[in-house]
Amino acid sequence: MDRIRIAVLGASGYTGADLVRLAARHPNVEIVALTANTHAGKPLGEVFPHLGMLRLPDLARWEDVDWTRLDAAFCGLPHGTTQEITAAVLGENPALRMIDMSADFRLRNLDVYAEWYGHEHKAPGLQVEAVYGLTEHYREAIGSARLIACPGCYPTAALLALLPIVQNGLVEASDIIIDAKSGVSGAGRSLKQNTLFCEAGEGLSPYSIGKHRHAPEIEQEIGAKAGGPVIVNFTPHLIPMSRGELCTSYLRLSGDASPDDLRDALAAAYAGEEFVRVVGRGVIPQTQNVRGSNYVQIGVFEDRIPGRAIVVSVLDNLVKGSAGQAIQNMNVAFGLDETAGLLQLPLFP
Amino acid sequence: MDRIRIAVLGASGYTGADLVRLAARHPNVEIVALTANTHAGKPLGEVFPHLGMLRLPDLARWEDVDWTRLDAAFCGLPHGTTQEITAAVLGENPALRMIDMSADFRLRNLDVYAEWYGHEHKAPGLQVEAVYGLTEHYREAIGSARLIACPGCYPTAALLALLPIVQNGLVEASDIIIDAKSGVSGAGRSLKQNTLFCEAGEGLSPYSIGKHRHAPEIEQEIGAKAGGPVIVNFTPHLIPMSRGELCTSYLRLSGDASPDDLRDALAAAYAGEEFVRVVGRGVIPQTQNVRGSNYVQIGVFEDRIPGRAIVVSVLDNLVKGSAGQAIQNMNVAFGLDETAGLLQLPLFP
Amino acid sequence: MDRIRIAVLGASGYTGADLVRLAARHPNVEIVALTANTHAGKPLGEVFPHLGMLRLPDLARWEDVDWTRLDAAFCGLPHGTTQEITAAVLGENPALRMIDMSADFRLRNLDVYAEWYGHEHKAPGLQVEAVYGLTEHYREAIGSARLIACPGCYPTAALLALLPIVQNGLVEASDIIIDAKSGVSGAGRSLKQNTLFCEAGEGLSPYSIGKHRHAPEIEQEIGAKAGGPVIVNFTPHLIPMSRGELCTSYLRLSGDASPDDLRDALAAAYAGEEFVRVVGRGVIPQTQNVRGSNYVQIGVFEDRIPGRAIVVSVLDNLVKGSAGQAIQNMNVAFGLDETAGLLQLPLFP
Amino acid sequence: MDRIRIAVLGASGYTGADLVRLAARHPNVEIVALTANTHAGKPLGEVFPHLGMLRLPDLARWEDVDWTRLDAAFCGLPHGTTQEITAAVLGENPALRMIDMSADFRLRNLDVYAEWYGHEHKAPGLQVEAVYGLTEHYREAIGSARLIACPGCYPTAALLALLPIVQNGLVEASDIIIDAKSGVSGAGRSLKQNTLFCEAGEGLSPYSIGKHRHAPEIEQEIGAKAGGPVIVNFTPHLIPMSRGELCTSYLRLSGDASPDDLRDALAAAYAGEEFVRVVGRGVIPQTQNVRGSNYVQIGVFEDRIPGRAIVVSVLDNLVKGSAGQAIQNMNVAFGLDETAGLLQLPLFP
Repeated sequence: MDRIRIAVLGASGYTGADLVRLAARHPNVEIVALTANTHAGKPLGEVFPHLGMLRLPDLARWEDVDWTRLDAAFCGLPHGTTQEITAAVLGENPALRMIDMSADFRLRNLDVYAEWYGHEHKAPGLQVEAVYGLTEHYREAIGSARLIACPGCYPTAALLALLPIVQNGLVEASDIIIDAKSGVSGAGRSLKQNTLFCEAGEGLSPYSIGKHRHAPEIEQEIGAKAGGPVIVNFTPHLIPMSRGELCTSYLRLSGDASPDDLRDALAAAYAGEEFVRVVGRGVIPQTQNVRGSNYVQIGVFEDRIPGRAIVVSVLDNLVKGSAGQAIQNMNVAFGLDETAGLLQLPLFP
Repeated sequence: MDRIRIAVLGASGYTGADLVRLAARHPNVEIVALTANTHAGKPLGEVFPHLGMLRLPDLARWEDVDWTRLDAAFCGLPHGTTQEITAAVLGENPALRMIDMSADFRLRNLDVYAEWYGHEHKAPGLQVEAVYGLTEHYREAIGSARLIACPGCYPTAALLALLPIVQNGLVEASDIIIDAKSGVSGAGRSLKQNTLFCEAGEGLSPYSIGKHRHAPEIEQEIGAKAGGPVIVNFTPHLIPMSRGELCTSYLRLSGDASPDDLRDALAAAYAGEEFVRVVGRGVIPQTQNVRGSNYVQIGVFEDRIPGRAIVVSVLDNLVKGSAGQAIQNMNVAFGLDETAGLLQLPLFP
Repeated sequence: MDRIRIAVLGASGYTGADLVRLAARHPNVEIVALTANTHAGKPLGEVFPHLGMLRLPDLARWEDVDWTRLDAAFCGLPHGTTQEITAAVLGENPALRMIDMSADFRLRNLDVYAEWYGHEHKAPGLQVEAVYGLTEHYREAIGSARLIACPGCYPTAALLALLPIVQNGLVEASDIIIDAKSGVSGAGRSLKQNTLFCEAGEGLSPYSIGKHRHAPEIEQEIGAKAGGPVIVNFTPHLIPMSRGELCTSYLRLSGDASPDDLRDALAAAYAGEEFVRVVGRGVIPQTQNVRGSNYVQIGVFEDRIPGRAIVVSVLDNLVKGSAGQAIQNMNVAFGLDETAGLLQLPLFP
Repeated sequence: MDRIRIAVLGASGYTGADLVRLAARHPNVEIVALTANTHAGKPLGEVFPHLGMLRLPDLARWEDVDWTRLDAAFCGLPHGTTQEITAAVLGENPALRMIDMSADFRLRNLDVYAEWYGHEHKAPGLQVEAVYGLTEHYREAIGSARLIACPGCYPTAALLALLPIVQNGLVEASDIIIDAKSGVSGAGRSLKQNTLFCEAGEGLSPYSIGKHRHAPEIEQEIGAKAGGPVIVNFTPHLIPMSRGELCTSYLRLSGDASPDDLRDALAAAYAGEEFVRVVGRGVIPQTQNVRGSNYVQIGVFEDRIPGRAIVVSVLDNLVKGSAGQAIQNMNVAFGLDETAGLLQLPLFP
């Protein structure tokens, strides 16, 4: 088979760089274009020295790419900038598969989008077409989608753990508390005081309490399984590490469901999945166990409070939480082995 | 006034060292003895080079200390070893004030102690006498106590945030979820694989889910305010930093109580307190803000789920969570200014 | 004695904040003004929440301070901006003692200043008057100085270790190699990509090789002791920690000098000094041992190469390397006990 | 081609685990046995959860492995234990290729071995046979060697940077100062106080000054190129990060050699090498750029002192410094593409 000819939009950000890291070693991919408008003309190795050993096209303005020569594009642009660019790119090459890692096409309800992002959606037609790229749950639709909206890192960690449980009616969907913890790379490479080493190091704090933009995305998907609108508590915390994400979900069991029932439902849902691993009773997921990889670990625990359970899920926010899942979706979209290019093992220590 | 003559039992551990750090600069204290049986004969500076500039007595076996010459003793020994030593020391000098930083005298119910620690309490008579050393809530009893059982670090962080709220009946005591996060120093200086730099760094995980020994201590105190037995969810996580502790408490509001009511109750409870600070609406507590100090920050937040609230509290686990609160209790017990020796400001960055 | 009335210029930077941390607990100081022009009007606690418990004047524009009411000013402004402001402030109040933590008045030779900073010195008259604030070596001059130019953090670490050795002719001044390592706070709080948590964490690199602005300052002082111009190798490295600085100095011994001779010279030079500690043979200085404190540790070691020695010195770059030494100089300048307000012990872990 | 059947001795240490991480994804390798005598009987995933998704043989005692069925063995045992085990294994299967990551066979001079390791070598016959596994410099001998002694992490970093320079006579071999910095994983997974998170975090210090066991190994190889015995200064420092190693080498130029001559010599030596990259003038190597990969970066810089130069080299101590180079040597020994299984890109951030 010919190699899939891809472009990476926004190659100067962390998700873009991790996409390149994976795509450059993918057996079925050829990287044809890299865009980063503020760095156009530079080799990627100047912006990301860890990738300097690769022979790659220089960074270019996205307007200067010949999109007709491409089979797929990965988009790692900041939220809000993707809609118009996606429309333009797909206008130029309607056959291209666009795999978006931004938040722009994740919310199916345009009103919810406008409420959380503060402006009307700029490509509502494309939003209708977009498929939510949580691979293990939307595999079939992804196979034929032209526009794939990869989930956020937090939603991936939360939803992989919760969807099979909610779908089986094992917990009260109205009483879900997700205490989430993320490494600093989730905030991206732009300059912010709170992500300086001296500010984020040796300390932690919650942020965006009650108003993080990943909440509506989680609610959309849980609601779809629960059969109606759902409000969840989602409280993220910034942890002094670069990569990794952990969700501790506190759940009220339905009827006489037990923590073992939850584990069984997860095990059944992910039997045969390479990347989602339900750990055994008593085994505790750790972000260290999945760092740098596309793997996810999910564990279920009894609560001291009767009638409740705790589910813990971990992933690498830049891989399964972003670039890795994007590659996984490309593999599905192009009919490749779904694990192609993604079997790098976690880096520990 | 003459200086209070103190000993520190277990001076080779982190809490012992932090006690020395504070006591050595306390205007009303003289350090007369330091014990560490496995290091007896060494200067403290050999075990803790950061304290090498102090002129202090060498480390000694506790059996070799003349307890009759002392006014107070601070105990930083491992859990389980304190009961018999305390009995012996108080036998030798019944007038001595024992300020215990271990867990040995925190649980008033001896059955609960036996259940969680796996053996009968070895000094039940002293347990009856012990006063729980959460300074802001037991100040009067501490003033006249001979044996002060300082709370654990997690209970201090959780209870300071929750007690005024529960006491005022503002939340359902049966539905309290405490997602707690701690730096690695909480695990002490003994050698364990999971606290190696390469294991604990760049990652995080929960631990002791549903069975951490600080849970019964939290339940004891919340139950006392709630007027009956209470079971709480308490789920600790190990964070890649040395010092600091943060509790995110998820609460169901009673009746028509609002998050503002919670904040008001906390503000009223701690008005005039030097060390417990209730931050304003929208301000987020961070462990960075209290590192190395005896200060606590508490913030209250609306939940997205109606009828719920989130309370966030932070402290330094070795200071207000241990050695600092111990000094504060000594100040109370001896009628000193409660802030004496404790006004060092947080170290940031 | 009345309290010394001070202002802190540049209170929104890390050195300014650490000055406030120390000054607020100094028994002989009253903080009368804090300036930070871009944050004027805000309380300090909004910019540095860890200092939010202090009752302090709000941040102001420096032009709005009544300098005639002040006894001393500490300047933590960025390099290059201090000269004109110092001239203006001293113009308004010629009796004020200005203790400058910036680099603006450290180089006695104005040509060297122009060469390294790229512009002519803007207050040459004041430069002539300035005294180099390496307390242990310029104590007498500091006592009567109006303008004290506190050394940089690296020069303090290097010079305290090297000056007594060079002065005693024990090493070849023409063959000094200083491999220096610093925590990230040395780069300040301004937003730079290389000081983001994800960039500086879990890695290290040298920087400014052969051209760091602290090199001429080190050469000036070593040259003064050596009796002629000296060129040193000074190679700084950025280390993934917030605070701390370590210099490993590689030295060629003169004549038949031995490492023990070096240690003896250092011990003699610093006998009776509270803050500079020469450790015993075989004891290795660690930045952990001085974190958050004004203490310095210096150790001397044999090299495997005959005729050479290694000297290791550590300090906290924000304390003895900046704000602490500034306070120490104030104590000297005002005839106070030199250790006043500076005896806080290192924070470990 | 049939897969190479390998065993990993000492699979419960960090180097063993990294060997498994790489070998498990190597296209030409089958992992047939894993030994760890203290963990015999356990699955590897119990000891290293990040490898739990692999289907691998359980950990076994090395005495229980059928060595006749194997083509190669990688040895990650502690120093001193390898000699007798290697002799036994090769006795059982003389055709096996033994690739040793311990220090046991690195020193060709048995007297030097005895001096540094405190006992006579236990397999002197095998020592004679062993080939030093610095791939880029001993490729031909490695190709036919039965016993390959992979260099230590520090020697790999130092020698790759220095050998071409010394060989070309560009620097004085008698005046080489190597200031080395390593992440904590270099100390292994055994329990030591100084590698606890709280001890190694937020600080740094040198260690083993003048007596680190990697010094004689470096001297052996530099001496071989210099044409006579050499003593170098090698001073390692422990850095608060898990992986990564950086050597800053301070060199005195010979005759009229220039820094550019050094860079040219390195560029010529490594032209065509995949893993050793000489960076351009002004580009600074960073450990972040090679983390998790088999790549090395080397840069050359002018010193401020005339007639001197600075060479900076970086690698990942567990990959090119240990397991990666071991795999690279296996590739050479078995006539495979030298980069097989080793092209994983660095993980950043």
